[in-house]
Amino acid sequence: MIVRPHQHWFIRLFDWHGSVLSNIVFRLSLNLLMSLIAIFGYPWYSTLGIHLTTAPFSLVGVSIAIFLGFRNNASYARFIEARHLWGNLHITERSLLRQIKSIRGIREEQVREFTGLLLAFSWSLKHRLRKTPVQADLQRLLPDNWHSAVLNHPMPTSQVLLCLSTWLAQRRDEGDISDIIWQSIDENLNQLSTILGGCDRIANTPIPFAYSLILHRTVYLFCTLLPFALVADLHLMTPLVSMFISYTFLSLEALAEELEHPFGTAPNHLPLDALCVNIARDLKAMNGERSLPEPLEPDAHFNLT
Amino acid sequence: MIVRPHQHWFIRLFDWHGSVLSNIVFRLSLNLLMSLIAIFGYPWYSTLGIHLTTAPFSLVGVSIAIFLGFRNNASYARFIEARHLWGNLHITERSLLRQIKSIRGIREEQVREFTGLLLAFSWSLKHRLRKTPVQADLQRLLPDNWHSAVLNHPMPTSQVLLCLSTWLAQRRDEGDISDIIWQSIDENLNQLSTILGGCDRIANTPIPFAYSLILHRTVYLFCTLLPFALVADLHLMTPLVSMFISYTFLSLEALAEELEHPFGTAPNHLPLDALCVNIARDLKAMNGERSLPEPLEPDAHFNLT
Amino acid sequence: MIVRPHQHWFIRLFDWHGSVLSNIVFRLSLNLLMSLIAIFGYPWYSTLGIHLTTAPFSLVGVSIAIFLGFRNNASYARFIEARHLWGNLHITERSLLRQIKSIRGIREEQVREFTGLLLAFSWSLKHRLRKTPVQADLQRLLPDNWHSAVLNHPMPTSQVLLCLSTWLAQRRDEGDISDIIWQSIDENLNQLSTILGGCDRIANTPIPFAYSLILHRTVYLFCTLLPFALVADLHLMTPLVSMFISYTFLSLEALAEELEHPFGTAPNHLPLDALCVNIARDLKAMNGERSLPEPLEPDAHFNLT
Amino acid sequence: MIVRPHQHWFIRLFDWHGSVLSNIVFRLSLNLLMSLIAIFGYPWYSTLGIHLTTAPFSLVGVSIAIFLGFRNNASYARFIEARHLWGNLHITERSLLRQIKSIRGIREEQVREFTGLLLAFSWSLKHRLRKTPVQADLQRLLPDNWHSAVLNHPMPTSQVLLCLSTWLAQRRDEGDISDIIWQSIDENLNQLSTILGGCDRIANTPIPFAYSLILHRTVYLFCTLLPFALVADLHLMTPLVSMFISYTFLSLEALAEELEHPFGTAPNHLPLDALCVNIARDLKAMNGERSLPEPLEPDAHFNLT
Amino acid sequence: MIVRPHQHWFIRLFDWHGSVLSNIVFRLSLNLLMSLIAIFGYPWYSTLGIHLTTAPFSLVGVSIAIFLGFRNNASYARFIEARHLWGNLHITERSLLRQIKSIRGIREEQVREFTGLLLAFSWSLKHRLRKTPVQADLQRLLPDNWHSAVLNHPMPTSQVLLCLSTWLAQRRDEGDISDIIWQSIDENLNQLSTILGGCDRIANTPIPFAYSLILHRTVYLFCTLLPFALVADLHLMTPLVSMFISYTFLSLEALAEELEHPFGTAPNHLPLDALCVNIARDLKAMNGERSLPEPLEPDAHFNLT
Repeated sequence: MIVRPHQHWFIRLFDWHGSVLSNIVFRLSLNLLMSLIAIFGYPWYSTLGIHLTTAPFSLVGVSIAIFLGFRNNASYARFIEARHLWGNLHITERSLLRQIKSIRGIREEQVREFTGLLLAFSWSLKHRLRKTPVQADLQRLLPDNWHSAVLNHPMPTSQVLLCLSTWLAQRRDEGDISDIIWQSIDENLNQLSTILGGCDRIANTPIPFAYSLILHRTVYLFCTLLPFALVADLHLMTPLVSMFISYTFLSLEALAEELEHPFGTAPNHLPLDALCVNIARDLKAMNGERSLPEPLEPDAHFNLT
Repeated sequence: MIVRPHQHWFIRLFDWHGSVLSNIVFRLSLNLLMSLIAIFGYPWYSTLGIHLTTAPFSLVGVSIAIFLGFRNNASYARFIEARHLWGNLHITERSLLRQIKSIRGIREEQVREFTGLLLAFSWSLKHRLRKTPVQADLQRLLPDNWHSAVLNHPMPTSQVLLCLSTWLAQRRDEGDISDIIWQSIDENLNQLSTILGGCDRIANTPIPFAYSLILHRTVYLFCTLLPFALVADLHLMTPLVSMFISYTFLSLEALAEELEHPFGTAPNHLPLDALCVNIARDLKAMNGERSLPEPLEPDAHFNLT
Repeated sequence: MIVRPHQHWFIRLFDWHGSVLSNIVFRLSLNLLMSLIAIFGYPWYSTLGIHLTTAPFSLVGVSIAIFLGFRNNASYARFIEARHLWGNLHITERSLLRQIKSIRGIREEQVREFTGLLLAFSWSLKHRLRKTPVQADLQRLLPDNWHSAVLNHPMPTSQVLLCLSTWLAQRRDEGDISDIIWQSIDENLNQLSTILGGCDRIANTPIPFAYSLILHRTVYLFCTLLPFALVADLHLMTPLVSMFISYTFLSLEALAEELEHPFGTAPNHLPLDALCVNIARDLKAMNGERSLPEPLEPDAHFNLT
Repeated sequence: MIVRPHQHWFIRLFDWHGSVLSNIVFRLSLNLLMSLIAIFGYPWYSTLGIHLTTAPFSLVGVSIAIFLGFRNNASYARFIEARHLWGNLHITERSLLRQIKSIRGIREEQVREFTGLLLAFSWSLKHRLRKTPVQADLQRLLPDNWHSAVLNHPMPTSQVLLCLSTWLAQRRDEGDISDIIWQSIDENLNQLSTILGGCDRIANTPIPFAYSLILHRTVYLFCTLLPFALVADLHLMTPLVSMFISYTFLSLEALAEELEHPFGTAPNHLPLDALCVNIARDLKAMNGERSLPEPLEPDAHFNLT
Repeated sequence: MIVRPHQHWFIRLFDWHGSVLSNIVFRLSLNLLMSLIAIFGYPWYSTLGIHLTTAPFSLVGVSIAIFLGFRNNASYARFIEARHLWGNLHITERSLLRQIKSIRGIREEQVREFTGLLLAFSWSLKHRLRKTPVQADLQRLLPDNWHSAVLNHPMPTSQVLLCLSTWLAQRRDEGDISDIIWQSIDENLNQLSTILGGCDRIANTPIPFAYSLILHRTVYLFCTLLPFALVADLHLMTPLVSMFISYTFLSLEALAEELEHPFGTAPNHLPLDALCVNIARDLKAMNGERSLPEPLEPDAHFNLT
């Protein structure tokens, strides 16, 4: 995710990093090429009775803009929901730790054990969503006595949740936690299950494929034909106007495609690494630990993963 | 549901499977025919004082695009809600099994019995929504002692839910589960009832019929008349532009119709088979079973049912 | 509600029932008349310097389409919320019966008494929303010992809810239901109160009157003036294009008006009768009754009330 | 709020009351004046090289329509949320009374005392939102023993809520209500707090002022310049078309402004008086009182406050 | 936040404060300059075959308006959610205090201690979101015995929440509060955690940077090129129309950017200072304190921070 300090409006016009421009620069060049073909070919092919006018392109352009608005809404809703789920992960883990710390009979090393399981849950969820290897982080974060239950399990995230549940049931069976307090804490474990399920849903079920296909095609065909429709009116100004319109449509289409899968590491994806560190900082500070992990900072291109 | 590996943007332009193109190819051919009639008939019928211009078609085209945007929103919302409900089914069944496994007095074979009832619930819901025969899966999944209660019942999904409730009440009456823990688990049974009711609602109540009818008609009439409006300006380019605009409108209308009923097996429907297997894998892995069912893979056309 | 078997796309174009066409056929005839006046009057009134052009009508037409999209959104949201509330009614009554049936001390005739109260609630809600006489159904459904409390009460739906609450309190006071189980069931009674209040809200508070008034007026004025704006360009084709555009606008306006009040018996209203029977079928099947009421079928015009 | 019996579509076109027409009639007259200036001034100022054309006004008109759609959405959402909150008030007070009435130890005069506090809550909320004097209604509704706690308090609504809470705690401390039943009832008191906070939020935080300012300005400037853009094409028809377009834009802008503050007494505001009486009728009927207050009826202009 | 008394519609047209006009006045001047260049340069550069027409600008203008509508929706949703969270903060703190005050064994100075912690929570949240120094307010509001736990903590807001939890657990362990009542109050502490997490999410995760970048660029390029497209038709009227259109687009873009970060102190940001004082007034009034803090009033420019 691009995290930029505030820019002057003028400088922002020429910002390179953080836009999707790098993805579409080749396609914009194609559009420039088409414009030049239109300008130089126009005198010849117009004599053949082949000509396009602006009017039908206005109709199709506005229609595509409406459908692109719908597509961006759908993609942005997925991005926002993903961010909400990770926000809820932070909230729920803080609530769980807060509840555990308020129980009288629970010793400090038990609280640290529980904290380790919570951190293992968030890190393993991150690796699950990004399809990166999880073992190293699990070994670092898991309390020793839970290593065997989780490390070689086919679904570690789900298994860590089961360990949290087992830990809690042990406290209840040992009499530290009454049934009612168990109920309040168990509700937050259900919340973790909801977060895991929600993230899985976003990661595994894309927007219906036909939507991205239809819009991809119509946007590309529209941008390809546009110079031929503009050239009769605009002559030498065709490349400028055609590339301007194409930039608007291509970049929004590319961005919608990027936001559709918010768990990657591209400039407009969610900074899961930073969110995991933030959760760890907060939980460790609640436990009174003095040496908190440093919050992640954006790299030289203002990108935070 | 079409599940595609990431495609290069250029290849995606010519993707055949996974679009709704197969549904509308006949109607696009009709549009081509109309364009040819317009081109060859124009010199004759224009002498009769019959001519159409682009301007009013621009007005009606943009209006239809706005209403089509509304229709797509409504259909997509149904698709998304259906996916949420199945996501919640996974979440709720995981939470239920997690809660049951954390109770001290419950034996392993009782956990397996409960797991069987949970799996029978999700499979029977799938069959109910797709109107496919449910008996084989019920016999495979149901624990033996619950066969008689469910197998010949007129509403097996609802009945499995009642069995889960009865199983739980037996544990409570046997003293394994206190009233408070029963309450926490019972809340998740209510959640299953909500999922069943939500899926039924989507399956049985379509978008008001007049919406699909009005849009179906206006889109078709618009595409039919369009070549006659374009021909005066575009002559030989009429088929290209007319088919381009028609493709945009017809394909989005066809897709909206497909998404309206998300429980089928068409390329843009939900992969209920795969979701059922995923739930089974997760629950069995929680029970520590070693031989998990293989996750379903898309077929040669990237379709996952 | 119109419930149609799937139609071939071609047949659907000429479907008469199920559209709002019957409501607007007179207004479309007026539009045809205006078109003829425009065609025959044009040579005369254009010499007086009176003429309209397409351009400003394009502006106003697109604006009206945007506002009509907003109006349809608002009406459709009411329809959807009403359907959700009735879906929740089914879900909640099923959950209530499931909970009651899982209590050990409750006898079968008590379960039937409770079921009767639940059915009386849904039927009396239907009559309340449709303003139809409720007494016959109440007498048929209510258990005998609750007749006196409900039958002559000024607000029978609210009173049945109070009876359910009293029944539940009796079981609690008799010791069959612990306070905690009472709490779980009572939450579902609160849910019934929410459903009753939500339906009342939709039935009693329309969309602000000025919205329907402003859009009604602008749509009608637009359709009336449209032929005079089109005639200069389209001559003999004026009636075709004018009626096409008018059909789109008038039918969507009429449909928005119909959906605004979803509890009636028109073709795009909710099938409350069928929903009540469905609930009854489900509850009776849960009680193991063999003779279930037949589900309602659409009439010859595919209309289900 | 305007509550109209169903009107014939033709009569509705000329309805005067219930529209926002009275608010904008002066501004429409200004528009007529501008049209006349445009018609008579056109021959003179066009010789100076000053002329406007329809094309850029089409662009700006459609853009304003889009932004006006956004503004109406935002205002309507506030209206709807306000209505939901008052619906929830009815639902919650009914649930509270239902719960209290199901407790065995509570005497009838205690139920009436509690009902009085509930009614005082809804009436004082109404006065708070409309900034009308609350003392008379509080004295009428409050049970005698709660007069001193509420009557001279700076925030009576919040104080009545505290009294309900105190009443409930007294019953708990006297042993009539167990902790668990207290919990169920207390949740509904939290709900009352949510309703009070939600209404306060709508009443105190308007839509960001710049939105209404920007749209107000652009709509007015657009309508003022419009006749000068239309006159070259439409000549004598300028006033008709200009006033038609202006009516659409000005009335929707005025309506959005009215709906933004839904707690007033204008024709499109919520009928809080009637809602308060409805709640009182329902609660009193639940208590078996025979003489219910009459429901409020709309006045001669169909306005219900 | 601008809080204005109601203005006459005419005066509102010329309101200076409260609009975003001050932010864009320089850019509007640039637009005026461009218009003058277009007017005086037109005779010269049009002879070079360089000319722009309105038609493609109409297409791109409407498209940008649609995307700007989307952007405003996204920003406004953040503003609204932020306001909801602060509304919930008020609601939750009132509910917490109400619940504590209804416990018999809790003494008045304990209630005051709890109130102090609640107020410290809201004030420290405000400072956290505005990145202003928190120590002075913490020292003023925190009860003495909690100073050491919070004052030098790296995350004071989260720590105050932990203190509230500890205070509550102490009451439970001392026997004043049963487990069930603890559960009801603990749920509201979870709510505080949710509010804190939600505000953090809005403050730390902006709308994907590419959205603001793409729209910023297209709006600016559009406004820069617009005069050259208008000049052929409008000549001397170019500056008026060009600045009118630019004002609409630039101001809405600037406002969307302002609303995206609703926790600042600009005219369209949330008045967190005033909200904190309101909460304090309400809680202190509930405790029966006589000298309530004065509610904050807008400054001379109607701005409330």
